Amino acid sequence: MTTTKAHRKLYFFVSILSCLFFNNTLISQDSKPTNFVIIFADDLGYGDLGTFGNPTIKTPNLDKMAHEGQKWTNFYAGASVCTPSRAAILTGRLPVRSGMASNKQRVLFPDSKYGLPANEITLAEQLKTVGYNTACIGKWHLGHKKQYLPTNNGFDYYFGIPYSNDMDRIQGEEYKNYWERSNDSIKTEHFNVPLLRNTEIIERPADQNSITTRYSNEAVSYIKKHKNKPFFVYLAHNLPHVPLFASKDFLGKSERGLYGDVLEEIDNGVGKILETLQKEGLAENTIVVFTSDNGPWLPFKLNGGSAGPLKAGKGTTWEGGMREPTLFWGPGQIKPGTIMDIGSTMDLFTTFSKIAGVEIPKDRVIDGVDLSPTLFKREESPRKNMFYYRGTEIYAVRSENYKAHFVTQGAYGQFGEREEHDPPLLYNLGEDPSEQFNIAEKHPDVLESINELIDQHRSKLIKGKDQLADRE
Amino acid sequence: MTTTKAHRKLYFFVSILSCLFFNNTLISQDSKPTNFVIIFADDLGYGDLGTFGNPTIKTPNLDKMAHEGQKWTNFYAGASVCTPSRAAILTGRLPVRSGMASNKQRVLFPDSKYGLPANEITLAEQLKTVGYNTACIGKWHLGHKKQYLPTNNGFDYYFGIPYSNDMDRIQGEEYKNYWERSNDSIKTEHFNVPLLRNTEIIERPADQNSITTRYSNEAVSYIKKHKNKPFFVYLAHNLPHVPLFASKDFLGKSERGLYGDVLEEIDNGVGKILETLQKEGLAENTIVVFTSDNGPWLPFKLNGGSAGPLKAGKGTTWEGGMREPTLFWGPGQIKPGTIMDIGSTMDLFTTFSKIAGVEIPKDRVIDGVDLSPTLFKREESPRKNMFYYRGTEIYAVRSENYKAHFVTQGAYGQFGEREEHDPPLLYNLGEDPSEQFNIAEKHPDVLESINELIDQHRSKLIKGKDQLADRE
Repeated sequence: MTTTKAHRKLYFFVSILSCLFFNNTLISQDSKPTNFVIIFADDLGYGDLGTFGNPTIKTPNLDKMAHEGQKWTNFYAGASVCTPSRAAILTGRLPVRSGMASNKQRVLFPDSKYGLPANEITLAEQLKTVGYNTACIGKWHLGHKKQYLPTNNGFDYYFGIPYSNDMDRIQGEEYKNYWERSNDSIKTEHFNVPLLRNTEIIERPADQNSITTRYSNEAVSYIKKHKNKPFFVYLAHNLPHVPLFASKDFLGKSERGLYGDVLEEIDNGVGKILETLQKEGLAENTIVVFTSDNGPWLPFKLNGGSAGPLKAGKGTTWEGGMREPTLFWGPGQIKPGTIMDIGSTMDLFTTFSKIAGVEIPKDRVIDGVDLSPTLFKREESPRKNMFYYRGTEIYAVRSENYKAHFVTQGAYGQFGEREEHDPPLLYNLGEDPSEQFNIAEKHPDVLESINELIDQHRSKLIKGKDQLADRE
Repeated sequence: MTTTKAHRKLYFFVSILSCLFFNNTLISQDSKPTNFVIIFADDLGYGDLGTFGNPTIKTPNLDKMAHEGQKWTNFYAGASVCTPSRAAILTGRLPVRSGMASNKQRVLFPDSKYGLPANEITLAEQLKTVGYNTACIGKWHLGHKKQYLPTNNGFDYYFGIPYSNDMDRIQGEEYKNYWERSNDSIKTEHFNVPLLRNTEIIERPADQNSITTRYSNEAVSYIKKHKNKPFFVYLAHNLPHVPLFASKDFLGKSERGLYGDVLEEIDNGVGKILETLQKEGLAENTIVVFTSDNGPWLPFKLNGGSAGPLKAGKGTTWEGGMREPTLFWGPGQIKPGTIMDIGSTMDLFTTFSKIAGVEIPKDRVIDGVDLSPTLFKREESPRKNMFYYRGTEIYAVRSENYKAHFVTQGAYGQFGEREEHDPPLLYNLGEDPSEQFNIAEKHPDVLESINELIDQHRSKLIKGKDQLADRE
């Protein structure tokens, strides 16, 4: 490059930059409402993104979100399996309150009778009260009957599958030993899962090979179409939940195998969404969150994810079951950095309601707290504790960096049988994120204060009627 | 901020930026020689940096190196313990060739007779031939007698300790059960390790509380003092090898405890070095590498590090023992991104020699390869394999993504006894970085080609005379 050329390039670059900088300053001053995009993965492990230490899955767009935004290393789902976790993120409440947690059935099935009760208030319903356009794209899993679908829960638009991608299995030869064998020979047509637009089935079985990219494209279209009014897009990918499928462009491309292909396709979609927001001039008044519903489904071996340094996975109340790799992005709004404070998917309900100027319901307990001081100013997170439920029972409680396990239990044949602990096991998750060294004996005071926390919690707890147990 | 103020800020920012950009363009065109800084940690785990997934250790400066430079996720030390690993990084050769690997003594001790043989050529000696100023700051561990010290191995300047920080132990009451107990009550004066400047002892016992910051400050001073001639700084921190010590400013600050305090102090020093390079206008013609000598010393529990998703740690040929969290930084030179190709500390010898225009020695086998096409253009790494030695014996070999274990053996009482495998265990490290699923039966062809690789390797192997076995 000659110096003249370099100069010309320099001034072009500078002028572009000055526009960006100038716009940014102006926008953060005016009162444009904030748009929200939640990208929710399914069964993603804590250790599955580049920025969370994965050595062989390429996630450049998610890494970019982490660098330009906030990377939360202590962020929790509301439960360790799909249905209750999804109830938690959308209502801001522990699923035990809504009845979307059960000791009889852990999730909803295609023959389940019920779904999210009508009197529950979703984040979409909150935002609709101040004129947001709202879309649910992807997996719902809060009831497949019409009255339970997204379109009856505050979403103007729905495009996706109503429950998990491994349900409605066709019980043929192809399905044999599905649990144990590699996914290579599993075909999308072995799962008779319907794809819906609003309340209509438009494809059955849903072509899962292309589904991830179709979801991302739907999100992009929706954003473009609704750029002049505030929007809330809840993009809940149904992958990397097994069975795994990837589009041709991604299949066989990742060093990590099929699981990596799927993740790289999701990451690609994240890139398209961020690019759209930037091109449409929406980046400065949109907050994008990326997280997951629960930890990796470990019995599926290489078709499941990795919890990285955390213990166990999906279905358990060990950290690997409920701590999620979480990113917040919003240039000019989200103050970049790594946040080690505690947060939860339930907090999105409260935080986004507050930012949008919607009142938090006063007639019920809302477990979410407002994270915006942390997001915007990197102030301390107001969340100091976390309850780890399995079904409707408290298994563990985190208070600051201490986590007490009252009951431990593995899941899906791994990590042991149910065991009650008295005194409870106690770990310092700051020093010992892998939950290796029980320090209960040294800290009776901590156990005492955690017990008080539980008493307080229980005194306000009204358990919702079990919505998951009944099947047709 | 008012709009006028914003404007003023904008133009100030733009003018700063234009200076930087312009300088950058000019510098990359002229022929200023490249400076090299190697920052080498001790017993650091693969999972101990923020950018490699640690949830509670803050490493903003190392994370910045990763984002602005290259993060290598498959980068190996030349051995799984101190002395041979240090011989490897400085000579570009497997330590079995120089005699710096032994089956009798794994490392050098304060009463060891020998050190790095005089006929070995170090990277410092290479760079001296073209006029570099060379400094070794920190732990040496390649022979403590005068003839083996850095000043007799190509370094103009030495400031550091000659062997590990846990040697020369004072066997008093304080030392009892050292192995098992927490480091809290261990004091720096329990280890009579000397601190040298060049060949003179200037402090004994070395004050290890302040040693990390003193090393970083020495590096900064050296860089400032030698900014007008090319320089090579080999900054080999003796921490986070146990016993752990941190300066007052860092003690008790990390959520991860003492181990985190130490890492955050090292990270702080990295920040000072990068800042110095930028302030002195040296950033565009300096390459900074950060890596470690071997994996975490796991029996020390929370005083040892974490291998993150990798198996086992220091002393073993599992991935946790030899794969290191590695970063290359050099704005305008190093092309940013995550590199999943294979690299090794031995490659620094060859790469930096090539960049500096120094011929690679032809009278001996050099194991290092030239990584500069990957560093500068993100071309494929020329390294396709890695030999994992324990002492002078091959335990495992990696070829592309396949790793065959011929012998496995734990270390320091963990991960089992020596076991020979025929057929070898085989793992695909792309799909299975945690070495969980042996796939030897499916890939006899891979095993065959790895055996050929070993035959080829052995046909050129001349084992050096054991330099570690003899003690006074």
